[in-house]
Amino acid sequence: MPSELERSMESLIMVFHLYSEKDGDGNTLSKKELKELMKTELASFLKSQKDPAAIDKIMKNLDQNDDGMVNFKEFVSLVVDLSIACEQIYQLHIMKAAAKK
Amino acid sequence: MPSELERSMESLIMVFHLYSEKDGDGNTLSKKELKELMKTELASFLKSQKDPAAIDKIMKNLDQNDDGMVNFKEFVSLVVDLSIACEQIYQLHIMKAAAKK
Repeated sequence: MPSELERSMESLIMVFHLYSEKDGDGNTLSKKELKELMKTELASFLKSQKDPAAIDKIMKNLDQNDDGMVNFKEFVSLVVDLSIACEQIYQLHIMKAAAKK
Repeated sequence: MPSELERSMESLIMVFHLYSEKDGDGNTLSKKELKELMKTELASFLKSQKDPAAIDKIMKNLDQNDDGMVNFKEFVSLVVDLSIACEQIYQLHIMKAAAKK
């Protein structure tokens, strides 16, 4: 049976392909597909973004090879950045909880 | 309710801290902790490694700031590399399946 970590890796791949296969090239996300993915799969994160141009800016940042599409490697870099930010918040919570003891 | 992607990000953080908090500094993995994490959470990957020094080599590669410890950012780069490799295999399968049609 796969571990929690292995299941998470599988989810990253499956979620990416769920959206990348919606139109055209199944191995990349168009801006429309990225928008759909973020609205559904990263809803809590997107809600905290007050900038209406957030998705355009994210797309521009992710698309490192500047082809107007986001491949899996580029998509994973978004997940990594968000995870690192969340982990730093988690560390702060742990530190605050320890200081209260 | 969190999405599958959000749950995966949470799992990355939780799995890391499950092992990093076993001894000493809770925010980094020692070589012993990394070994435990890989043996339990990445067992299928580790089984495919025939090199007995694989973990030492992985630790050396991951430890970018060369302090003998693996922080969350360094750990995530391992997960990313493995996910990208798995995704390439997934793409190959899809291509082979399409070619058969």
